[in-house]
Amino acid sequence: MRMYDLILKKRNGEELSREEIDYFIENYTKGTIPDYQASAFIMAVFFQGMNRRETADLTVAMVKSGDVLDLSKIEGIKVDKHSTGGVGDTTTLVLAPMVASLGIPVAKMSGRGLGHTGGTIDKLESFKGFSVDMPEEKFIDNVNKIKMALVSQTGELAPADKKLYSLRDVTATVDNVSLIASSVMSKKIAAGADAIVLDVKVGDGAFMKTSEAALELANEMVGIGKSVGRNTVAVISDMDQPLGFAIGNALEVEEAINTLKGTGPKDLLELCLVLGSNMVVLAEKAKTLEEARAMLAEVIESGKALNKLKEFVAAQGGDASCIDDSGKLPKAKYVIPVVVDKDGYVRKINAQRIGLIAMELGAGRATKESVIDLSVGIVLNKKRGDEVKKGDIIAYVHSSSEEKGKKASEDILNNYVIESKYENNIPLIYNIVR
Amino acid sequence: MRMYDLILKKRNGEELSREEIDYFIENYTKGTIPDYQASAFIMAVFFQGMNRRETADLTVAMVKSGDVLDLSKIEGIKVDKHSTGGVGDTTTLVLAPMVASLGIPVAKMSGRGLGHTGGTIDKLESFKGFSVDMPEEKFIDNVNKIKMALVSQTGELAPADKKLYSLRDVTATVDNVSLIASSVMSKKIAAGADAIVLDVKVGDGAFMKTSEAALELANEMVGIGKSVGRNTVAVISDMDQPLGFAIGNALEVEEAINTLKGTGPKDLLELCLVLGSNMVVLAEKAKTLEEARAMLAEVIESGKALNKLKEFVAAQGGDASCIDDSGKLPKAKYVIPVVVDKDGYVRKINAQRIGLIAMELGAGRATKESVIDLSVGIVLNKKRGDEVKKGDIIAYVHSSSEEKGKKASEDILNNYVIESKYENNIPLIYNIVR
Repeated sequence: MRMYDLILKKRNGEELSREEIDYFIENYTKGTIPDYQASAFIMAVFFQGMNRRETADLTVAMVKSGDVLDLSKIEGIKVDKHSTGGVGDTTTLVLAPMVASLGIPVAKMSGRGLGHTGGTIDKLESFKGFSVDMPEEKFIDNVNKIKMALVSQTGELAPADKKLYSLRDVTATVDNVSLIASSVMSKKIAAGADAIVLDVKVGDGAFMKTSEAALELANEMVGIGKSVGRNTVAVISDMDQPLGFAIGNALEVEEAINTLKGTGPKDLLELCLVLGSNMVVLAEKAKTLEEARAMLAEVIESGKALNKLKEFVAAQGGDASCIDDSGKLPKAKYVIPVVVDKDGYVRKINAQRIGLIAMELGAGRATKESVIDLSVGIVLNKKRGDEVKKGDIIAYVHSSSEEKGKKASEDILNNYVIESKYENNIPLIYNIVR
Repeated sequence: MRMYDLILKKRNGEELSREEIDYFIENYTKGTIPDYQASAFIMAVFFQGMNRRETADLTVAMVKSGDVLDLSKIEGIKVDKHSTGGVGDTTTLVLAPMVASLGIPVAKMSGRGLGHTGGTIDKLESFKGFSVDMPEEKFIDNVNKIKMALVSQTGELAPADKKLYSLRDVTATVDNVSLIASSVMSKKIAAGADAIVLDVKVGDGAFMKTSEAALELANEMVGIGKSVGRNTVAVISDMDQPLGFAIGNALEVEEAINTLKGTGPKDLLELCLVLGSNMVVLAEKAKTLEEARAMLAEVIESGKALNKLKEFVAAQGGDASCIDDSGKLPKAKYVIPVVVDKDGYVRKINAQRIGLIAMELGAGRATKESVIDLSVGIVLNKKRGDEVKKGDIIAYVHSSSEEKGKKASEDILNNYVIESKYENNIPLIYNIVR
C-alpha cells in the first residue's frame, strides 16, 4: 500500500477501505507517512468528504493508535458527557454531581486546554487544596465509593488524533464534519465510556454556526457511536449567547453551586436537566426521560446533588466549606458594572467576543504557557430578550486591574446589541439526535 | 502575512493577490513555509483552481525564485519550442536544424530527465564524442556563428518549480492545468526565450487524455506567455499513437536524419513543418505561415537543414560522419520482428505502454540512477489505419538481450489493437492556439 494512492483515491472522490484508513493512521502515528502527504490527504478529505463507514473506521483507527482506558473495575454503566465547546459552559460542574447522586458513576478525565476560560480542572482548583493527582486505584476506588472522581489525563489517548489535529490546525482543515466527529469520538471511546451524551453547541459562540451544520455533526457523531457499540445521544443547544451568567473560573464554580441550590440561571439548569435525563436513561437508572428528569429535579430540591459536590471536593483534598460560604472562593479586586446607555431589548450578545474579553481579563489561556487568574471574568446581568432601561447594569466585570476592567466594560457594551423591539425566538434546545 | 490564511482563502475559493502568491513562492523556496502547508495549499488549488491572473503571477514568482538566463548577446529573436511530452517524440532533433538553417538562433538548454527515452542530450550522445560541456561564451558564440547550440542546464532556473513539482509528485497534485502551465512556462521564461512554440500532446500516450483538456492547457499557457510579454503559440497534436516510427535514442537520431533527408515518417515531418512555420513567423523571418512553410520545405529539399545538423554536431565534438553513414550509430545486438497473427486494420497502438516497453528495454530512465542503452528501442512498421495481413511484421524490437527482446515483442503485439474494419479519423493536428 502507498500513501500516494490513498491521496489520489480520496482526491478523485472514491471511498477508502478500512485497511487503507488503518494503514494511514498507523503509519502517520509512527511517522513513516510524512506530514506533507497527510496534509494533502486531509485537504482532499475536506473537499471530497468521508462517508459514515469511513468516518467510523477513522475513529476506530485513532482509538487503536494509543491506550484505551480500562474502566471495567467501576461498577455500573459509565456515561460520559462531552460539549463541543462554548462560552460560559458550566454544565459539567452541575451535571456531574446531579447524576452521581443518583448512583451513576462519573469517572472523568480532563485536561487544562486552551480557551475562553480554563478547563474543568482549572475551575475546580478554585477550591483551595483540590487536586487531580492520584494513583489509578484511588481514582477507581473514589468512583466506586462516592460515584464521582476527576483525574488529569494519564496515558496516551488517541495520539493519532492529537498529531492530526495539530496538523489540521495549521493547514486550514479543522472545520470538516467527519474530521471533527472522529476527533471527538476517538477521545471519548479511548477514555472508556460505555455511553456518551454530546452537547453540540450552535450559534455565534460555537464552532457550528448554523443549526444545519450542528445537526450534521450530531448525526455523524451519533452514527459513529452506534457503529462501535457506544450508545450515543446528541443534544443540540444554543450558543448564540453565553450559557448562564458567569464566564470565568471561580465565577462559574459559584454559579454551579447556585444552580445546585436551585438559585442559578434557568437556561443552565434546563440544559443540565435535558443532558442529565439522557445520561440517566443511558445509564439505565430510569426507563423514560420524564422519569429521569423527575429524579434529577428531586436531587436538587433535596440537596443531594449539592452534598455530592461537597463529598467529591473533599475527597480530592479541596476546601468544601466554600460551597456553603462562597465568600471563600477566589475574588477579583475590582468589580466594575457595565451600564447600558439606551432603552430597548437585548437582541444579541456576541458570545465569541464576550469569551475573548474574559480571556483577555485572564480567565483563559491564549497559549499553553498562559497563567490563569481564577478570580476574574464576567457576570452577565441581562440576556437575550431582556428589557433594559438607560442606566441599567447589564453585566459586571471582575478584574485584577481597574484599567483592564474598564476596557473590558466598554468592550462588553459594544458586544450587546440593543434594539427598540425584539422578541426572543431562539430556543435553548434545537434538537435531540439519538 | 500568514500561510495559514492563504490556504484558508484558496480553500474557500477566493482569489489570491500577487503579493500573496509572491509570499508563498518566496518563503516556500527559502524553506520558511513547510512542505505540509504547501501540500495542503496545492491540494486546495487542485480543487478550487486558479484564474488566469493568479496563474501568471505564480509563473512570474517561480521565475523570480532563481536565475534568469541572459541571451541578449545572441542576435535575433530567440524562439524556444517545448513539448508536453509523448512517446517517440523526435521533433527537436528535426526542427532545430530546420529553423537554424533559416538563420533563426536556437540556443537550447536541455536536461537528461526521466522517461520512455532519454532527453535530447542523451539522444545526441549517439554521435560519438558529442559534448554539451562548454563555457557560456562558447555557447553564445556557437549560436551566433552557426545558429544552433545545446548545453546542459546551468544555473538554477525556477528552483521553486523544482521544489514544488517534487512535492506535487508525491501528493497526487500533478494534474492540474494551472500548476502544469505555470511549471512549464516558468522554466521556458527563465531560460530566456523571447517567444515560445508549445507542442501540447493529446491522447493515450500524453498527459492530457482529451482534446478538451489539451485545449484548456494550451489556452492557459498561451495566456501566461502573453501576459508576461512572450509571444506564445500552442499546437495541439496527436499522441494517441507514438509519433513517427522510432522509440529509442539512436533509433530516433536515425529517424531524424532520414526526416531531414526527406525520407522520414510523414507525421513527424508534418508536425515539424507546422511547429516550425509558427517558429519562423514568431522569429519574424516570414510574414505568413504559408511563406514560412515553403521556406522550411526548401531547406529540407536543398539539404541545408541536414548540413546544419552536421555543422552543429561537429561544432560540439560529435562524429558527424554518422549522418551520411548511419551504420556508425550505436546498434543493438538483436533485432526481433513483431509478427501480427491476424488480418485487419490497426485501430490503436497503446502509446503509453509502447513507451514503457522501450524503457524496460533500456531506452529510458526509470530512476535518476538508471543507465541508458542508446542502441535499444522499438521501430514501428505499421501505424493506425494501416491494413495488415497475418504474418506481416508490424514492428521491430532492438534489444541487447534475446530474452528481453522476445518479451518486448509479445508485449508490443498485445498493445496493437487490430480490427476487421477501421477508418482512421484522428487528426495529427487538433488545433492551434495563439
